[in-house]
Amino acid sequence: MSAPWITYRPEIKVLDATIRDGGLINDHQFDDRFVRAVYDTCIQAGIDYMEIGYKTSQKVAAPTKFGPWKSCSEDDLRRIIGEKSPAVKIAVMADAGGKTDYKTDILPKDQSIIDTVRVACYIHQIPEAVDMIKDAADKGYEATCNLMAISTVHEAEIAQALEVVATTPASTVVVVDSFGSLYQEQIRSLVHQYRTALEGTGKEIGIHAHNNQQLAFANTIEAIIHGANRIDATMGGLGRGAGNCPMELLLGFLRNPKFHLRPVWQLIQDHVVGLRREMEWGALAPYIITGQLNQHPRTAIAWLGSDQRDRCADFFDRCIAEV
Amino acid sequence: MSAPWITYRPEIKVLDATIRDGGLINDHQFDDRFVRAVYDTCIQAGIDYMEIGYKTSQKVAAPTKFGPWKSCSEDDLRRIIGEKSPAVKIAVMADAGGKTDYKTDILPKDQSIIDTVRVACYIHQIPEAVDMIKDAADKGYEATCNLMAISTVHEAEIAQALEVVATTPASTVVVVDSFGSLYQEQIRSLVHQYRTALEGTGKEIGIHAHNNQQLAFANTIEAIIHGANRIDATMGGLGRGAGNCPMELLLGFLRNPKFHLRPVWQLIQDHVVGLRREMEWGALAPYIITGQLNQHPRTAIAWLGSDQRDRCADFFDRCIAEV
Repeated sequence: MSAPWITYRPEIKVLDATIRDGGLINDHQFDDRFVRAVYDTCIQAGIDYMEIGYKTSQKVAAPTKFGPWKSCSEDDLRRIIGEKSPAVKIAVMADAGGKTDYKTDILPKDQSIIDTVRVACYIHQIPEAVDMIKDAADKGYEATCNLMAISTVHEAEIAQALEVVATTPASTVVVVDSFGSLYQEQIRSLVHQYRTALEGTGKEIGIHAHNNQQLAFANTIEAIIHGANRIDATMGGLGRGAGNCPMELLLGFLRNPKFHLRPVWQLIQDHVVGLRREMEWGALAPYIITGQLNQHPRTAIAWLGSDQRDRCADFFDRCIAEV
Repeated sequence: MSAPWITYRPEIKVLDATIRDGGLINDHQFDDRFVRAVYDTCIQAGIDYMEIGYKTSQKVAAPTKFGPWKSCSEDDLRRIIGEKSPAVKIAVMADAGGKTDYKTDILPKDQSIIDTVRVACYIHQIPEAVDMIKDAADKGYEATCNLMAISTVHEAEIAQALEVVATTPASTVVVVDSFGSLYQEQIRSLVHQYRTALEGTGKEIGIHAHNNQQLAFANTIEAIIHGANRIDATMGGLGRGAGNCPMELLLGFLRNPKFHLRPVWQLIQDHVVGLRREMEWGALAPYIITGQLNQHPRTAIAWLGSDQRDRCADFFDRCIAEV
């Protein structure tokens, strides 16, 4: 067999989103031991970034309801990270839509352990996202733009958004398949659109895939082949709904010797297997159905929480009726 | 979004391998009710073929150990199928390697309810497989050649095998990723190799993918894009080890209006959800590991049957030591 993947691209950087995306399942209530284990695993595995949580305003997300990783403070971060490794950058996600008091809650970089602010927005929130990206960059952070739910957005609108984002100091623009509904050909087409729109800006393309149709890993490979250099994955695929591209698959595919797979298996053995007894994620039937129909997974999450959870044909009928 | 998949290829035919491949988990002990439900679902869903089991010699597979779908007799088949629908062809698998008494156990077509004999072989069994294909075709059946475990075979050897198979009356040659170890680029390359080698013979290319790396569906899509027209899938992905390409994903992707997705969800709701309590399949950690290492899943199956089953890092160490 020929092996076109036998070489590697040194430009590729991997981001672990386990705590941030997984936190959407359990209201960000991970215990410190697990969060620290993920951080240590990132160091050992050669992972470039760890995205640890959100910077959501506590006016929006009451700390009585949510764990520390919803609005992660410097104290939270330092408690986990201790002496910071130069090998792993710390990223947080900042949602647009009035959810983040970014002017006050994101401190100047020299007062923070955070390296990277990932600004997440829907297409109609681009103007606010641009302000947030500029604010983060002005404060000394690397900033990125994660344009969500693009499977529901027309190409021409994506083009307009990219034209605006191209003028910002964002280092990376991430292709985000929020609903896990995209096929490889669509990922390829989006990566090419992003690359063309951002040509000459020095910006990298990222990929953040969801696993509704068991395509998160395949779509991540597809994005890599077509030039994405910023890759999101999570340990055991842990993440909201169907979950994300599993780190253990991604690192098995990447041939860069700086990445090490074994620490990821150790983390899964020591922690993720146990978490599966408390939390549910993966390409379960209702998530497949919302993915196929290009719908938000929230109805599937609710269905799986009901006593109807195994009645996937009934769920299919219900979703089809809403199309 | 552009939609290159909005059209469909009428040449594509789908084969359901649920009972045949799933039988490798439970020694082919499915009850008649489930087998009949799969058959009825194939009719309702517009599926072209149902592969119901093996034609293994009862000298090799004692009927005291194995259920009827290991050596399926005409009586077994007729008991399930009753009045045969013209819409769904019945396929059986016949293993080379001295496992099938094909000369006696495969009856002349006019005495059988079977339409298609799928001859499965490893590369070194090609001469016997050729005899089996000819025997089946001479008796009036459609015959196919399923060359297994090609991820461990050099391209030049595959080329030699295809040169021989090209001279047989096989209607289809199936790309079989037995270990679930192939990436999309490798599937593409294999499909092109098969197409080139079989050009002008009128033979179709098939795809049979395993899900160790969560790539069974993605690799099936890749094969379709590059010209495979004979597609294997199973209900709920049911199949040995990590399982197969899930029918509910495949039919959601295919745009041919002759295929209907809802009956598949009904079958999953009524039967497959329950089977999950008795049988285990899917991209569990040990299956990922054997897939990544291009190894047969038998060690992973054994590991999952032991009290070490959740110790995936230990299993990784053990598999690496054997490479």
